[in-house]
Amino acid sequence: MRTYSSVDFSKVKITGPFWHERLDTVMESTIPTQYDQLEKHNILDSLTIRPEAPPLTIPKNRHNFTTQIFWDSDVGKWVEAASYGLSHRRDEKVEAQIEDITDKLKKAQAPDGYLNCWYLQREPENRWTNLRDNHELYNAGHLLEGAVAYYRATGRDRLLKIMMRYMDHIAETFGTGEGQRRGYPGHEEIELALVKLYHATGEKKYLDLATYFVDERGNTDGVEHYFEIEREERGDTPEMFFQGTHEYSQSHKPVREQDKVVGHAVRAIYLYTAMADLAAEHDDDGLKSACEALWKDVTETRMYVTGGFGPSERNEGFTKDYDLPNETAYAETCASVAMVFWAARMLNLDLDGHYADILELALYNNSLAGLSKDGAHYFYDNKLDSDGSHSRWAWHFCPCCTMNVSRLVASVAGYFYGVAETEVAVHLYGGAETTLPVAGGKVHLKETSNYPWDGDIRIDLAPEEGTGPFTLSLRIPSWAKDATAKVNGEAVEVKTERGYLKMNRTWSKGDAVELSLPMPAERLRAHPDVRADAGKVALRRGPLVYCIEQKDNEQPVNRVRLPGDTALSSSFRPDFLGGITVIEGKAKAEQAADWGKALYRTEPAPEADTSITAVPYYIWANRGPNPMAVWIRE
Amino acid sequence: MRTYSSVDFSKVKITGPFWHERLDTVMESTIPTQYDQLEKHNILDSLTIRPEAPPLTIPKNRHNFTTQIFWDSDVGKWVEAASYGLSHRRDEKVEAQIEDITDKLKKAQAPDGYLNCWYLQREPENRWTNLRDNHELYNAGHLLEGAVAYYRATGRDRLLKIMMRYMDHIAETFGTGEGQRRGYPGHEEIELALVKLYHATGEKKYLDLATYFVDERGNTDGVEHYFEIEREERGDTPEMFFQGTHEYSQSHKPVREQDKVVGHAVRAIYLYTAMADLAAEHDDDGLKSACEALWKDVTETRMYVTGGFGPSERNEGFTKDYDLPNETAYAETCASVAMVFWAARMLNLDLDGHYADILELALYNNSLAGLSKDGAHYFYDNKLDSDGSHSRWAWHFCPCCTMNVSRLVASVAGYFYGVAETEVAVHLYGGAETTLPVAGGKVHLKETSNYPWDGDIRIDLAPEEGTGPFTLSLRIPSWAKDATAKVNGEAVEVKTERGYLKMNRTWSKGDAVELSLPMPAERLRAHPDVRADAGKVALRRGPLVYCIEQKDNEQPVNRVRLPGDTALSSSFRPDFLGGITVIEGKAKAEQAADWGKALYRTEPAPEADTSITAVPYYIWANRGPNPMAVWIRE
Repeated sequence: MRTYSSVDFSKVKITGPFWHERLDTVMESTIPTQYDQLEKHNILDSLTIRPEAPPLTIPKNRHNFTTQIFWDSDVGKWVEAASYGLSHRRDEKVEAQIEDITDKLKKAQAPDGYLNCWYLQREPENRWTNLRDNHELYNAGHLLEGAVAYYRATGRDRLLKIMMRYMDHIAETFGTGEGQRRGYPGHEEIELALVKLYHATGEKKYLDLATYFVDERGNTDGVEHYFEIEREERGDTPEMFFQGTHEYSQSHKPVREQDKVVGHAVRAIYLYTAMADLAAEHDDDGLKSACEALWKDVTETRMYVTGGFGPSERNEGFTKDYDLPNETAYAETCASVAMVFWAARMLNLDLDGHYADILELALYNNSLAGLSKDGAHYFYDNKLDSDGSHSRWAWHFCPCCTMNVSRLVASVAGYFYGVAETEVAVHLYGGAETTLPVAGGKVHLKETSNYPWDGDIRIDLAPEEGTGPFTLSLRIPSWAKDATAKVNGEAVEVKTERGYLKMNRTWSKGDAVELSLPMPAERLRAHPDVRADAGKVALRRGPLVYCIEQKDNEQPVNRVRLPGDTALSSSFRPDFLGGITVIEGKAKAEQAADWGKALYRTEPAPEADTSITAVPYYIWANRGPNPMAVWIRE
Repeated sequence: MRTYSSVDFSKVKITGPFWHERLDTVMESTIPTQYDQLEKHNILDSLTIRPEAPPLTIPKNRHNFTTQIFWDSDVGKWVEAASYGLSHRRDEKVEAQIEDITDKLKKAQAPDGYLNCWYLQREPENRWTNLRDNHELYNAGHLLEGAVAYYRATGRDRLLKIMMRYMDHIAETFGTGEGQRRGYPGHEEIELALVKLYHATGEKKYLDLATYFVDERGNTDGVEHYFEIEREERGDTPEMFFQGTHEYSQSHKPVREQDKVVGHAVRAIYLYTAMADLAAEHDDDGLKSACEALWKDVTETRMYVTGGFGPSERNEGFTKDYDLPNETAYAETCASVAMVFWAARMLNLDLDGHYADILELALYNNSLAGLSKDGAHYFYDNKLDSDGSHSRWAWHFCPCCTMNVSRLVASVAGYFYGVAETEVAVHLYGGAETTLPVAGGKVHLKETSNYPWDGDIRIDLAPEEGTGPFTLSLRIPSWAKDATAKVNGEAVEVKTERGYLKMNRTWSKGDAVELSLPMPAERLRAHPDVRADAGKVALRRGPLVYCIEQKDNEQPVNRVRLPGDTALSSSFRPDFLGGITVIEGKAKAEQAADWGKALYRTEPAPEADTSITAVPYYIWANRGPNPMAVWIRE
C-alpha cells in the first residue's frame, strides 16, 4: 500500500538559514544543557542500579506523584535527539556521553534482558504488573528509538543490541501464546519504535511484536480487558484508577473501531503513528481507514490554529469537538511533535498535500514554540492567549517535551522529501540538499530558499547518468494562492493534484525549477462552533501563525481590535529576534481612562486608534513575561 | 461605629411571591431531601462515635482525599437552614430531626467539651494538630451557627449549651495566655459564628475569642507563623502543603495589613465578614479600613457580573485582577452566599447603597443559581458559559454549597431591613412585613411589590402611638435610572444620599410611599481589561442578570451576536418556568453550512438574522443539559 518512503534524516543536509540556525542551536545549546539537566536531576545516575543503596532524591508533584518511572524515556529521547544532531555535525563529547549511557544500561540490564531502571532499583518483584500506568513499555520504546537513531547516525550497534535483547524479552513475555500475557502499553510508543527497529534490522519478529501490541489493544472479544485483569491482580481500589477510563489510553475499543480521537493526546497520536506504519507494512485497509477517520476527526474538530492538540490539562488530552480554549490551552509540545510523526506516515501512505499542510503547521508553530531561541528553555503547554504569567522553564517536573522538541528539530531533515519508484516529492521547503534513488538511478536535488520568510524557491536537479524519467512533485501548500512555477525559466501552469504540482519528464543535469508561493499576511477565522474564537481572527503568513506580544505593541494586547477592513503588511526585520518577518496593521484599542470604579457598566469603552505588530507564534516568550494573543477581536 | 443593625430573619415576614415561592420550596423540598442525603451518605451516622467499630464508608476523590473531616459542618448548616425555615413555618418533623441531632452531639461530646466527630472517631490523639487543613474550628463554627439559629427560631437552648461548652473548651485551648496555643482556623468561619453567639447570649468571652482569632491570624511579629509551628510538630514533608501558600488561608499577613483578596474565596469572605462584625463591635478603624480596601479590591477587579467570586478551581479562589474566565468560572455558590453575609455587615457599618447593590447582585444571581427550581438540585461552581455539559447535581462529593444556599434562602428575610435609632432603611424589595423599634416607638412596615419582575413598590407605614419622627431610607439601586417616588400620592424628588432616598418626617398610620424603579432591559459591558468579556455584552434587567439558554433559542447560542443597535424588549411570561420575565431582541448568528471541512479558513462565516430569548441567570439549567451564555458577542 505504501507508495512513498520518507528520506532518512541522515541522508538530507539542511542548508537554509531557518533550520540551520535551529540545528546549530540544538547542538550548541540544547543537547549539552539537557545532558547537564539529566545529570543534575539524578536521571543519569538512576541508570546505575544499586539495590542496597537508599533511593535517589526524586521530584514529586503536589499529589505525591513522582516522574521517576518515566526517566528511562528521558534518557532514550536525549540519545535520540543527540544522535540526529550527530548527522548535522559530529561531536566527540556527545558520542562519549552516549557511550557512557550505553555502559550504564549494559550493566543495568537483567540477565533475562529486562531493562527498566525504576523497577530494577525499586521493586524488581513488580515487573509488568501495571502496564496501564507505569510506563515500562513506553520507556522501552524510547530507549529503543534512541538506540536506532544512534545506530543510524554512527553505525555503532552496541546500544542497539542491548535494546534488541530487551525487545526479545518483551516478545517472550507478551503475546497470545501459551504462558504469555496479553498485555499492551498504557502509554503507546513502543509500537512505532519497533517498526523502526524492524526497518533498521530487517528482523520481522519486531514488526510482529508491534503488530501484536496494536491488534490486541482494547480487545475484549472473548477476553477480559487487559487493564482490568492487571488491576484485579494488583488488588487496586477504584480510586487508584486515576483517570477512571480506558479512553484515556485509547484502549476503550479495538483500534480498528476507533473513529474519535480520545484521551491523552500524546498517547493517542503515537498510537495513530504506529497504526499508519502498520497499515503500510501490511497493506491493512482496516488500519488505514481507522487512521483516516481519526485524522479527519482531529483536524476538522480538535486542532488549534497553531497545530496544537489536546486542550485539557486534566487528561493532558482531548475533550470534545470544537473545544479549543485559548488561555487554558494545554496543546502539549509532545502532542504536536507526535502529529508531525503521524502526518509523515500518512503522507507516505497517500500523497495528499493535506497531510503535509498539517505536518508543516504542527512543525513550524506549536512544536517549534516548545523550544526557546536560546535552545535551553521550553514550553510544555502552549497557550494561545496569555496575561504574561505563562513563561518558559529551563527544566520541568515532567521533562518529556524537552527532548521531544529537540529530537524533532534535530531530525527535521527527515521530513523534507519522499520518494517512490519513479517520483520524488518535496514536502517542505527551506534549503535542503539530498541525493535520492529514483527511476533506476539517482538524482541530486538542491532546494534553495529563504523559506518560511520568503516563498521564492529554486530546485536544482542533477540526475546521474542513466536515471529514467520521473515525476518531480512539489507541494503547493493550501495557504498558497496564485502560486507560479517555471522550469528552466519557462512558466508552467500550476495545476495541482491533491496539493502537489507534478512534473514528469526526463530530467537533465542543470535543470532548475523555480516556484513562487505568495505569502500575503492573512486573517484566519475559526469554524463558528469554536466558542473561544468567535468574533476573532488569527494572523497567518505562509506556514507561520502569528501572535501579538505586549512588548511590540503600545496598547494592552487584550484591548486590541483589528477592524475587518484594515490592511495588513509584512516586512522582514533582519535585526529583530534573529531576523523575522513581522505583520503590521492599523487597529483600535478600548480605553479605560474614563471607565470609573465599577467593573461593569452600560456604556461601551471608547476606542482609540493604534497599530499592531505581530510576530511568529513560535518565537513568542523569548523576552521575559509578556502578555500575548493569537486570536484578536475583529 | 455601627449605626445600623440588621433585622433578624425571625422578625420579618416574607409575603411577596418571588421569595415566598423559594421559601416554600426550601421547606417542602430542600430541607427534607437534604436530610435524606445526609442520612444516605452516612453523615448523620458519623455523629455517633463508635471507636471500636470499623470506619464508615466514606467518599474519596481521585486524589484519595476524603471530605468526612467536613461532615460536622454539613450537619451544622443543615440545622441552621432548617431553623431559619422554622420561622417561615413550623414543622414538627424537622424539629424532631434537630432534636435527634442534638442527642447525638450530646453523646459524642468529650468530657472536656471537645466535639469534632472525625477526630473523636478516627484519631482522638491528634486533636488540634492540623488547624491549617483539617477544619476542626470551621466545623465548630458551623455547628455553632446552627445552634444559634435553632435557639433564635425556637427558643430552645439545648444545642446551644452543647456548643457553648465546646466554645469554652476552644477558648481555653487557644489564646496568647500561658499554656495556650496561638492557633487560628485554616478555614475561617468560627469567628463570625462566635459574634452571633455573643449577640445571642451577651457573653463577652465569645466576642473576645472571635477577636483573638482575627487578631492573631497571620501574626509573625515575634512568633513563628502558627501553621509553620504546627507543620514542624507534625513532621510534614513539603509536598503535604497542598496549596503551598499561606495566601490560600489569608494568613500570609495580619488581617489589618491585607488589601488584596487572595486565596480560597469562601475562607476569605467569611474572614472579611467577621472583620466587619468586629469593626462594628470594637469601633475598630483598622479593621474597617482593611474591610473597605478588600471590598474595593474584590468588587472593582475580581467579581463576576453575576456576583460570583473566585474564578479558579485550582485554589477554589482568587487569582488576579480582571481574571474572570466564563467557561471555566468556579464562582462557588458558597462564595457568593458569603458575599451576602459580608455586604450586610458593611451596610450596617456604613449605609451606602453600593454595599446593598452587591448584596442584591450576589443574592439574586450567583447565589440563587445554586439552588434548582425543584429545590433538590444544586450548583457548586457557577459557569457563565457552558456547552451543555455543566448540569445540576442532587448531591456532591463536597456538599458545602448545598446547605449554604438553603440557609441563605431560608434567612433572606433578614436582609431586607436595617434600623438605627431614628432611621429605618429598606435595602431589598419583594414583599416583606415587619414591625421595627425606632424613634422611641415602633413602626409597622408593609412593603408590597412584585419585585424583581416589577419595580413598582408600595410601602405602608403604621407607627404606633408615640413614635417620634424618623427617616425612612429607601434604597435606589444603582441600576435604577429615573426612579420616581410619591408620598401619599404626592410626587417627591428622588434625590439620593449614597444610594438611599431619605425621607424624614413624623409618619402617621396610613402613610404610604410609592416607589417606581424603571427596569428596562440593558446591556452591560465589562472593564476593558476583563479579557474574557472583550467585545461582549451581558443583559440585565433590574437586579437580575440574564443568559441565553439553548432551549429558548433557535440558533446555537455560541454563534449568536447581538448587534449594538438592536432594541431589547422584556415581557413577563406567567406560564414559563414558574413565571419569569424574559428579554428578547433581534440578533445575528454565524452559519456553518458552507464552511467546508477545514477548521480554519480565511473567509468569515455568513450571518443570518435570528432573535434571542434570554432568561434570568438564576433559573438556568432547570431543563436538562442546555448550552448557555451570559456574555454575548456584540
